[in-house]
Amino acid sequence: MQRRMSDLAFQDYYPDDVSHCYGCGRLNEHGIQLKSRWDGEESVAYYTPKPYHTAVPGYVYGGMLASLIDCHGTGTAAAAGYRAEGRTMDSQPPLRYVTAALNVNYLRPTPLGDPLEVRGRVKEVKGRKVVVEAWIIAGGEVCVRGEVVAVQLPEAMRQS
Amino acid sequence: MQRRMSDLAFQDYYPDDVSHCYGCGRLNEHGIQLKSRWDGEESVAYYTPKPYHTAVPGYVYGGMLASLIDCHGTGTAAAAGYRAEGRTMDSQPPLRYVTAALNVNYLRPTPLGDPLEVRGRVKEVKGRKVVVEAWIIAGGEVCVRGEVVAVQLPEAMRQS
Repeated sequence: MQRRMSDLAFQDYYPDDVSHCYGCGRLNEHGIQLKSRWDGEESVAYYTPKPYHTAVPGYVYGGMLASLIDCHGTGTAAAAGYRAEGRTMDSQPPLRYVTAALNVNYLRPTPLGDPLEVRGRVKEVKGRKVVVEAWIIAGGEVCVRGEVVAVQLPEAMRQS
Repeated sequence: MQRRMSDLAFQDYYPDDVSHCYGCGRLNEHGIQLKSRWDGEESVAYYTPKPYHTAVPGYVYGGMLASLIDCHGTGTAAAAGYRAEGRTMDSQPPLRYVTAALNVNYLRPTPLGDPLEVRGRVKEVKGRKVVVEAWIIAGGEVCVRGEVVAVQLPEAMRQS
């Protein structure tokens, strides 16, 4: 099923009280503010690391790449959760996912400078869990492959 | 074999041209500047995330936790590499490791505010590869467990 890319990103639908994530919270002025959207059956986000997000000079820091996999994974998990329930991301109750496990394989050094393309694909939606595979493309090559096991945010973690 | 904690951290021995890592480079003024040292057969580092390194409010961002596992892992790998060769970290040639694979399991939410204790243990040293298990303690509990597969930096990645 083909979907049009929406103007709003998955993360734009997060409720205010859980929109402070350093990686993807629209209310975190110091953070990455990752924006993920559907692109057909895959999800996609773009981010250009800052010059100081370096590993060794010329290449992107692995922790930044892990962060992009992480937040693109939880964002895609949220979108997949709504989709599995047959409702839109502006409907109630809100679905917000956190990471239970993160695996990242660095296939080749990721060049620093150009925008990175972060892509995702839903592997599994089961109860409160969503598994997303994600990968990062730079310079026309897949440099990083990862997987995120995301679970719905426990109510105890919401401080509202 | 018991080792005394040295004044210099593993990362302080990295050559200048590979000391710009956002996570552990002493020459990256914007970065975390993680400092890892031996503590007996384990390695240890401490870091207090900034208030904006948040996941949902009150808890540490998972990408930051992955970054700490990552850089403590590669630092410990370097120290283990020198140790396996029976020489000190100020001897030549320098050993510098990068991450090939990173696995992180978030066991419980990590509270934001207090210093985090990052610990590591060498699982394997084989050729150019070192495997390090690492974990993060906050509030007296292990909140995160991970593993880093580190490999010696390819010469092609050094831009000297």
